[in-house]
Amino acid sequence: MLQKTACFLVIGNEILSGRTQDANTRVLARALNAQGIRLLEVRVIPDIPDRIINTVNECRKAFDIVFTSGGIGPTHDDITADCIARAFGVPLVRHEESYQAMEAVMGREKFNAARQRMADLPEGATPILSALSAAPGFTIGNVHVMAGVPSIFASMVEWLVPQFEKSAPLASASWHAAGLKEGDFAEDLRLLQTRFPTIDLGSYPYQLSDGTKGVALVAKGYDAETVRTADTALHDLIMAHGKEPMKGEADLDRAV
Amino acid sequence: MLQKTACFLVIGNEILSGRTQDANTRVLARALNAQGIRLLEVRVIPDIPDRIINTVNECRKAFDIVFTSGGIGPTHDDITADCIARAFGVPLVRHEESYQAMEAVMGREKFNAARQRMADLPEGATPILSALSAAPGFTIGNVHVMAGVPSIFASMVEWLVPQFEKSAPLASASWHAAGLKEGDFAEDLRLLQTRFPTIDLGSYPYQLSDGTKGVALVAKGYDAETVRTADTALHDLIMAHGKEPMKGEADLDRAV
Repeated sequence: MLQKTACFLVIGNEILSGRTQDANTRVLARALNAQGIRLLEVRVIPDIPDRIINTVNECRKAFDIVFTSGGIGPTHDDITADCIARAFGVPLVRHEESYQAMEAVMGREKFNAARQRMADLPEGATPILSALSAAPGFTIGNVHVMAGVPSIFASMVEWLVPQFEKSAPLASASWHAAGLKEGDFAEDLRLLQTRFPTIDLGSYPYQLSDGTKGVALVAKGYDAETVRTADTALHDLIMAHGKEPMKGEADLDRAV
Repeated sequence: MLQKTACFLVIGNEILSGRTQDANTRVLARALNAQGIRLLEVRVIPDIPDRIINTVNECRKAFDIVFTSGGIGPTHDDITADCIARAFGVPLVRHEESYQAMEAVMGREKFNAARQRMADLPEGATPILSALSAAPGFTIGNVHVMAGVPSIFASMVEWLVPQFEKSAPLASASWHAAGLKEGDFAEDLRLLQTRFPTIDLGSYPYQLSDGTKGVALVAKGYDAETVRTADTALHDLIMAHGKEPMKGEADLDRAV
């Protein structure tokens, strides 16, 4: 079964200004990998209505599935729901079920006009639920709108993504080797890639905080059998260059 | 003077697969803020030639300046230089000065075919230098191509960005307040935004690792005088809601 394609739109000035580091891409990417959905593009765009509307309309045609994060809170700079409604040419209408759920959680006194606005969804949208917040995200067409706060975003991804039709998950295998340099094995790796045309072999230099440098070699693809074969081949390539192959990449994830 | 607009293309399967967290956006964003260049979009795209070529051609028309990171190393998955050359309709040619600099640093024996490939630039390109590597990035037209390895990327940004014409830098001021909730001050903040139409007021919920929750209030814009006035107004808004305004945001940068 062919993998569906996805695009993730990160809506928020705070990423583009360098104030905040995006943490949501990785959470979504991993959930999509497990579900066999292929994340093909991420775009970070500012809180400017025309840019949001045009980007949503471009991407919902170009990809099977579009996800967004950010801009669905109670403040004036939360304009995502309004922009998505305009992109789809529908009005924002109160989603009664969400309104009542929010009122029940927050209590009538705290449920002021600003918070009530979070229960307004584009007409025809269905809510995306979170274990952490009564204020919903929403789905309209192939566009799935989620919160930007990482903990709430993650809880919405956890609720939403398993509901998509599952395809073969992205399989991966990786080895790292301290002291190995890309230029030394580039030709061998190129030849290996020609042996495994159905998957991607990648090479990623890293430097740990203690100064150790090395390279991570990664095989990735939807053909799990070939990834397993490539796993062994990457191990052997490192051995052939006189370095020690080490399994696991968790400690390299934040390496620079 | 009007700020020039910029777009940053992060080229790399490793970000889209969730294996690596992008660290370069923030470095570039902060350098551009200081130079008065407005980062309007970031796109993360995979190592697929057509997608790189089409995205570069779309973005170099849509933005004043385009930056890229990733894919200029010695391995087979480093296809950025080739794709940029194709986007501009020019051949890749050996850049003699870079070739000789690399050979001098690496020594003739280690300077194999894979490494020599890193001295091939699109015809007409000029090199972008790094304090950490003899292998260059390059500029062609309004597109600036840099390495993906964060330390080398940062050194190239440091060399390149101050060479752009300087405009008024992005000014910002921020306060944070533990225990403050967006829904409680949303209406006051909206009114404040109408008082300061030339700058952006933003509100960002955070949760620290010790569980403390709060909100950061941020004023940003190219009109420094108004940002300073808004700074005081944001402080007073927090006071009016019975919380203690705290200056500085460094400890919140990684907050979730």
